[in-house]
Amino acid sequence: MDILTYTPEHEDFRQRLRIFCETHVIPHVDRWETEGIVPKSVWRQMGGSGFLCPAVDPKYGGIGGDFRYSVIVAEEISRTVQTGLAAALHSDVVVPYIESYGSEAVKEKYLPGCVSGECITAVAMTEPDAGSDLAGMRTTAVEEGDTVTINGAKTFISNGINCDLVVLAARNPDVENKYEALSLYVIEDGTPGFTRGRKLEKMGWHSQDTAELFFSNCRIPVGNRLGEKGMGFLMLMEKLQQERLTCAVGAVCGAERMLEWTMDFCRSHNRNGRPLSKSQTVQFELVEMAADVKIGRTFVDKLVADHIEKKNIVVETSMAKFWTTDLANRTADRALSILGDLAAMESCPLVRAWRDVRVMSIFAGTNEIMKGIAAKFMGL
Amino acid sequence: MDILTYTPEHEDFRQRLRIFCETHVIPHVDRWETEGIVPKSVWRQMGGSGFLCPAVDPKYGGIGGDFRYSVIVAEEISRTVQTGLAAALHSDVVVPYIESYGSEAVKEKYLPGCVSGECITAVAMTEPDAGSDLAGMRTTAVEEGDTVTINGAKTFISNGINCDLVVLAARNPDVENKYEALSLYVIEDGTPGFTRGRKLEKMGWHSQDTAELFFSNCRIPVGNRLGEKGMGFLMLMEKLQQERLTCAVGAVCGAERMLEWTMDFCRSHNRNGRPLSKSQTVQFELVEMAADVKIGRTFVDKLVADHIEKKNIVVETSMAKFWTTDLANRTADRALSILGDLAAMESCPLVRAWRDVRVMSIFAGTNEIMKGIAAKFMGL
Amino acid sequence: MDILTYTPEHEDFRQRLRIFCETHVIPHVDRWETEGIVPKSVWRQMGGSGFLCPAVDPKYGGIGGDFRYSVIVAEEISRTVQTGLAAALHSDVVVPYIESYGSEAVKEKYLPGCVSGECITAVAMTEPDAGSDLAGMRTTAVEEGDTVTINGAKTFISNGINCDLVVLAARNPDVENKYEALSLYVIEDGTPGFTRGRKLEKMGWHSQDTAELFFSNCRIPVGNRLGEKGMGFLMLMEKLQQERLTCAVGAVCGAERMLEWTMDFCRSHNRNGRPLSKSQTVQFELVEMAADVKIGRTFVDKLVADHIEKKNIVVETSMAKFWTTDLANRTADRALSILGDLAAMESCPLVRAWRDVRVMSIFAGTNEIMKGIAAKFMGL
Amino acid sequence: MDILTYTPEHEDFRQRLRIFCETHVIPHVDRWETEGIVPKSVWRQMGGSGFLCPAVDPKYGGIGGDFRYSVIVAEEISRTVQTGLAAALHSDVVVPYIESYGSEAVKEKYLPGCVSGECITAVAMTEPDAGSDLAGMRTTAVEEGDTVTINGAKTFISNGINCDLVVLAARNPDVENKYEALSLYVIEDGTPGFTRGRKLEKMGWHSQDTAELFFSNCRIPVGNRLGEKGMGFLMLMEKLQQERLTCAVGAVCGAERMLEWTMDFCRSHNRNGRPLSKSQTVQFELVEMAADVKIGRTFVDKLVADHIEKKNIVVETSMAKFWTTDLANRTADRALSILGDLAAMESCPLVRAWRDVRVMSIFAGTNEIMKGIAAKFMGL
Repeated sequence: MDILTYTPEHEDFRQRLRIFCETHVIPHVDRWETEGIVPKSVWRQMGGSGFLCPAVDPKYGGIGGDFRYSVIVAEEISRTVQTGLAAALHSDVVVPYIESYGSEAVKEKYLPGCVSGECITAVAMTEPDAGSDLAGMRTTAVEEGDTVTINGAKTFISNGINCDLVVLAARNPDVENKYEALSLYVIEDGTPGFTRGRKLEKMGWHSQDTAELFFSNCRIPVGNRLGEKGMGFLMLMEKLQQERLTCAVGAVCGAERMLEWTMDFCRSHNRNGRPLSKSQTVQFELVEMAADVKIGRTFVDKLVADHIEKKNIVVETSMAKFWTTDLANRTADRALSILGDLAAMESCPLVRAWRDVRVMSIFAGTNEIMKGIAAKFMGL
Repeated sequence: MDILTYTPEHEDFRQRLRIFCETHVIPHVDRWETEGIVPKSVWRQMGGSGFLCPAVDPKYGGIGGDFRYSVIVAEEISRTVQTGLAAALHSDVVVPYIESYGSEAVKEKYLPGCVSGECITAVAMTEPDAGSDLAGMRTTAVEEGDTVTINGAKTFISNGINCDLVVLAARNPDVENKYEALSLYVIEDGTPGFTRGRKLEKMGWHSQDTAELFFSNCRIPVGNRLGEKGMGFLMLMEKLQQERLTCAVGAVCGAERMLEWTMDFCRSHNRNGRPLSKSQTVQFELVEMAADVKIGRTFVDKLVADHIEKKNIVVETSMAKFWTTDLANRTADRALSILGDLAAMESCPLVRAWRDVRVMSIFAGTNEIMKGIAAKFMGL
Repeated sequence: MDILTYTPEHEDFRQRLRIFCETHVIPHVDRWETEGIVPKSVWRQMGGSGFLCPAVDPKYGGIGGDFRYSVIVAEEISRTVQTGLAAALHSDVVVPYIESYGSEAVKEKYLPGCVSGECITAVAMTEPDAGSDLAGMRTTAVEEGDTVTINGAKTFISNGINCDLVVLAARNPDVENKYEALSLYVIEDGTPGFTRGRKLEKMGWHSQDTAELFFSNCRIPVGNRLGEKGMGFLMLMEKLQQERLTCAVGAVCGAERMLEWTMDFCRSHNRNGRPLSKSQTVQFELVEMAADVKIGRTFVDKLVADHIEKKNIVVETSMAKFWTTDLANRTADRALSILGDLAAMESCPLVRAWRDVRVMSIFAGTNEIMKGIAAKFMGL
Repeated sequence: MDILTYTPEHEDFRQRLRIFCETHVIPHVDRWETEGIVPKSVWRQMGGSGFLCPAVDPKYGGIGGDFRYSVIVAEEISRTVQTGLAAALHSDVVVPYIESYGSEAVKEKYLPGCVSGECITAVAMTEPDAGSDLAGMRTTAVEEGDTVTINGAKTFISNGINCDLVVLAARNPDVENKYEALSLYVIEDGTPGFTRGRKLEKMGWHSQDTAELFFSNCRIPVGNRLGEKGMGFLMLMEKLQQERLTCAVGAVCGAERMLEWTMDFCRSHNRNGRPLSKSQTVQFELVEMAADVKIGRTFVDKLVADHIEKKNIVVETSMAKFWTTDLANRTADRALSILGDLAAMESCPLVRAWRDVRVMSIFAGTNEIMKGIAAKFMGL
């Protein structure tokens, strides 16, 4: 049986995207890595070809596609090489806040640009001192009449340099209960009082631009609030499932690519006069790695299907987030050991992959946070 | 989505089996463990109630059920406690040889008893020196006219004491090529020249009777051969997929039961004045264990569905065999560590489970054999 | 360099003990396992030959030996097979309480018997509800004039059936502060009000007798108190270092024996026509196991030397306790996997070893307790 | 007990070196990492201060120190940060070939410069196709009269850019037996026919210059041969023990530094309102990491002592090489997980350490090669 089945429309989308990547992504990735950023023009090309925000309603320019389109994007982008082109973050994590909770005016204003790639988005939750702990958030949003005044700082913001629009979480200083204090707002690039820090140098994912964002008496219209005042915590909770699942899909795809590359390498390279793949210890390593990868993929496919059916899988997605990112790291590490000397060289494709996947266990909620969430929802 | 869906017939079967187990199995398991064997009367009760060989064609007394019935049996039997009532071995491993390859006469003679529990079966492959290595098999079968003469010894045979009928693999001493030399035969209890050794004491699974079998000029009619002469190797290869899958289903069910028991224990027992389940390290252990178990279950469900669709999943079932039995062992071991002092006592249900699941990584092809098979079929 | 060097006296002791074990221990171990207890006569033989309590002062019959004698006993007893002859518990854990803290009268009365094997000892700390948590202890000792009245119950007491003398921890019900409430007392077998429960069936270590002990208005002279009233907690803390180290020595010796046995097996048994030891995956397993064992042994030797020099190594012994018992378990488990089918049989010596070492991670403070202690003393 | 004891001379050396590092190394490491190389001037400063080649005989300018000096250098250089200043490679791996096997003329000519830092050395064994497999080496050395003609290429040569002198392994094309064909030669920078490739970009250890070396009809005097013709293989075998031990010392020192840094971080940083070090799961992680590190350090100290006593510890050093480099990697990886978000940033000191230690499992013989060697010498 196939857990996920694809329609001809899906397959056509996949084929077109594969060609797009071969033309507009793969040949440029090395340069982006050196430059530390993906050019905004690539986003526009990708949007122009219909590969951003497939889930968005057609009336705003999207195709109203289900989550399988997101899986396809993750698979195709990971097909050749890890890249910092954070299309999944934009399409599957940030934009859904706008479409689900924005007013009609907000949606009409921003969604078409999100789809076309004119408007690159970021989500700003993490703060310098509080980390990912929403309860410790200090950035404030004071609503007075039609105006909201934002003060505070955010850090580790992916797409922080490129973004044209930020979905920001901030607290109402007048509300004690931290779960009732948060609201979400959209803030445009260029709004007075909103500035960016320098691009942060990351351990990996070098072409993905990450930055600090600062808000100093930054005033926005109250219409830029997403949803009801004080409902930010609940909105975050509701959307985090998809963020984690997106991350798990990416991790499994990455692991699959690394494994494939390593198996090809072992079949085509000799050690002591015979192919590496004929060494019993290498075979057992590869089989164990392949079993892990297949098992992880099956679980993620199942969760994608459940997610499309709108099932409550908060425990399962938390588990998938930590298990699959651990899987990706384990796969990378074992692969390096198999390669031997070659693995010491930056030119080896697995080296970049090894470094990039390490970050996946950390962002979007560390594995420790995932375990805490699962424990809570399992009634422990 | 549900990977495996069950019909009302399946659910009815499950409910009746659950009641059967509560009445006829669970109250007696401790005694069987002490006695080292499950009484033959239990097999007859189980058969009489319709729980043996659900896959067998109705014309021989079965219900012609699909493999989901086998999953139900595995789940229900594992529900409360590990037991040596090897119904799965009989129904899902041995009897299929008879039904797939036996002549009409053989099927009419034996299958009804297999279904009713009058005829308990075993499969005899492993030999004292050759282990599970089919190529090293020494037991010979010489066909002359209507008679086959068997000589040799088999060991580690599950159901070795209780069995009324043995499916035996033996080689034709005149054929060099080891893959073309094997044939399968059925041999009845009581055939002159067929004797059993003492019951072997195993590390675990104490109520499961395991024995050596001896064949000394044991003569059987040639009609007792299953399938074509010399096709034994191929028949074994074809049926081993289901054996491994059966084993994987049992391992996952066992892991689920152990985890459930441990979680209940942690919720209801205090350490240092609060429930064990409130300790952060215990929570993380349980979450990690639960993630492993869920992921393993999902994979096995997928393979069951593929198996029902008759897909070729030889690589996947080999992987599942070693991965899920490792999972069961890991789950048992981590659970014991969580329990602390209590885990040192034989009376702790997890202790028996810990001991019993250890054998699952060893029988039905060790994990090392599974990895070798996977490597071969992956083209390494 | 040799971390531990032995004098001719040590070597002579070792040689005599080795012969003693070959004569009086090894041939009987299987019977003891079946009977679930080591006969008291063996203790007297061992004491009579000078192998119990080597550390005791010569004026009480000992040889005033250093801790290297204890290492020798652990090594020689583990040389062939795991056994429940808990000489180390008696000599290195219980008797030191008496010699260090007993009054001259107590020492004169009991130590000669401890050395000769006439008086087998046990230490009673763990309680049915409190587990190893000293703070939760409920057994009370009320001192009035010259009499102490004991009430309560202890469980998981090794040597619980054989013991002639118990070192008991009990609390003064009038003292709130749990660290100042404990005192230690020695209680003779036969004292009215002191009874034993049934022998507990353990998961392993079957020849080691473990039992519950009950105290019901059990009256003993106040002179049977060890040390100052209320100093029990500190005395326990001081002596636990040696208990943990004794356990670590036993775990490493056990791992060495299992590894040796497995390597011999692999050199002398064929699989697929060549010695198991020529399989690359088996070689790597054995090398990794051997590295672990050598590294663990080196650490324990170092701690023994430090312990003899009376260094404070509370963090290191806690680490050694959990690390070496994990090592022993890991070694046993990997060895079983290498053996294959044979490992499923109770007759395989590694099976008993595998089961017995599992308990070592649990008794004498679970590994979790050890980590907690280390964390505390590391200032975390 | 202290396994390694240091004299006042050792301690004085350590103090002076520590000050040297604080002045001449630490402040510059970041720049060297960016530039991808350590300036040659630093080598001269280090040599001028007496910190290079402490083992060399005083008559060539060294101090004739034992291997403890090398341990001190490893410890002090690793004290603050990983760096590519490969003093240990020069002092403990390459120069010993010259001092042990060079003619008096060669020693007089080169050793003083090695000690002073005027002459930086490299050893060239690995080849583009053969990897670390000495038997597959293709570089040839043809001796005719007083001249040796070298042809071939070497790769992954540490100090490949900076080196003034190369110790090269090459084979005599007239000798079949690969173990009798190798000889070692020293080749000066500037010799016609000896050229370098570009600096190789490595996955880590960025300030360590690694390069390919090419030899095209490169002629050197026969007096530049080290030792007897055809004895190269034996000389390599003899010196590899010290290379592996040097690597193990570095790995343990690295792990100690990473652990220390992480513990300090956990004590001084809060999460959810209390120090990270008060989280039970973090405590257990740190205790487990600390146990590993302590145990690894003890083993390496023991091997250093044995090495100074010239014991044959080829099995043990092979084990130490793979075990300690795995330890360093495991420590780095666990530390990153503890840090959370911060670990994603290049500015986090542990990130560089994590990347740099990964290479240690690969160079100087991969862990797989180490296991093969140990297996061979263990008689498997």
